[in-house]
Amino acid sequence: MVKLILAYDGAAYNGWQIQANGVGIQAVVQRAVRKMTQEKNVVIGASRTDAGVHAFGQVAHFQTMRTIPVHGWLRGLNSILPPSIRVREVHRARATFHARRGARWKHYRYLIGVGPSASPFWVGRAWHLFAPLNVRAMRKAATALIGRHNFRAFAAANDGNRSKVRTVYRLDVRCSEEGVVINIVGNGFLKQMVRNIVGTLVEVGEGKRRPEEFRAIVAKRDRRLAGRCAPPGGLYLVRVGYTKGL
Amino acid sequence: MVKLILAYDGAAYNGWQIQANGVGIQAVVQRAVRKMTQEKNVVIGASRTDAGVHAFGQVAHFQTMRTIPVHGWLRGLNSILPPSIRVREVHRARATFHARRGARWKHYRYLIGVGPSASPFWVGRAWHLFAPLNVRAMRKAATALIGRHNFRAFAAANDGNRSKVRTVYRLDVRCSEEGVVINIVGNGFLKQMVRNIVGTLVEVGEGKRRPEEFRAIVAKRDRRLAGRCAPPGGLYLVRVGYTKGL
Repeated sequence: MVKLILAYDGAAYNGWQIQANGVGIQAVVQRAVRKMTQEKNVVIGASRTDAGVHAFGQVAHFQTMRTIPVHGWLRGLNSILPPSIRVREVHRARATFHARRGARWKHYRYLIGVGPSASPFWVGRAWHLFAPLNVRAMRKAATALIGRHNFRAFAAANDGNRSKVRTVYRLDVRCSEEGVVINIVGNGFLKQMVRNIVGTLVEVGEGKRRPEEFRAIVAKRDRRLAGRCAPPGGLYLVRVGYTKGL
Repeated sequence: MVKLILAYDGAAYNGWQIQANGVGIQAVVQRAVRKMTQEKNVVIGASRTDAGVHAFGQVAHFQTMRTIPVHGWLRGLNSILPPSIRVREVHRARATFHARRGARWKHYRYLIGVGPSASPFWVGRAWHLFAPLNVRAMRKAATALIGRHNFRAFAAANDGNRSKVRTVYRLDVRCSEEGVVINIVGNGFLKQMVRNIVGTLVEVGEGKRRPEEFRAIVAKRDRRLAGRCAPPGGLYLVRVGYTKGL
């Protein structure tokens, strides 16, 4: 079993998973693996990132009969893959390793640019807002989400998960040189959950909602009570953990 | 007279100046200004950045009869310009202000990524090298360039400047999280001078040249003695100064 750690610029892709329209990152990686192995490998990723969402540390696995050393996989795959998808690390994993089912926690980051003019270097890579955000109010609102909750209010209408209960271990809102950075770590996320949380937090930061509303939104489990969905380009899958401790 | 501070991602452009082939950034900015003024304005930039070179702080000026407030220029131009070119600041300047002739110093930055796999987020925005660089040796070599010198050895063959004498005020080589950052400040630069200096410094960092060679390269004024030209995507025009002090 081979475990890959992947970084990609999601701007040009229709998300991780193979889609009816457009190109899925999974398909591009799978094609590169098959080109090296001449086998019919199936590449499985930890997270089905949406169209336009990026990754610093997506994890994927595949089975193979080939005995190629890890640096051989790294160089070989990177020479086949486009520059927008890079294999950062390759590890031999035990036969039972499963990138998605084995994941204990995921770390996502959301980047927001704030200021009178957007940076040309963050096009499709951050959400740009012109007015300053009240980060203190956003932090206060965020505390309502930490812990084990039913997150139905923050899930996309077409989310396919039976249980909407997830645990958020960490959710912090920090000021950065360019704007605001939101880090969120949880044992799993519903479809568009991070982007809906960010969109609603931004409405608090803009003064359109009070931070106290967050507790009621969670409790009422109604998507219509939460805010807009933040654009995909600001979201990054940072890391996937396979052990209990963070 | 209106003074603009511009940032741009140079990847999609054929440099600042209007070219026979491809699109010049100057032409795009000039078209946006003329659309706002309905005049035949001419936009003049401080630095003729090459194709693929980026800017955080290019300076440009143009004359106009319109009395639009500075925030009106900022919003208006940014609404016309593509997201890869942004007006960061607009200032009213005295009638004699000239972005190129008035420039006393320019600050360029060169970004190098180092590691076994290149980042998908730095494609066309940094020079990626796989083997580590000896930064201490690069620093030692760099000291030979500080001060007033004839830089013919680091100029492109088709550099049009009569005098090849320039003063480098600062040239530092630092380690960053992703690799190496080179900052260079001087009273002016010959064509491809920064990229030729960086390319030659990298050869020192790779152990292909000794740092002591730099003094002889400068003294002999022969382009063939210096190293390769670093790719344009790693170069950024950071700031242009109009007063004597840095």
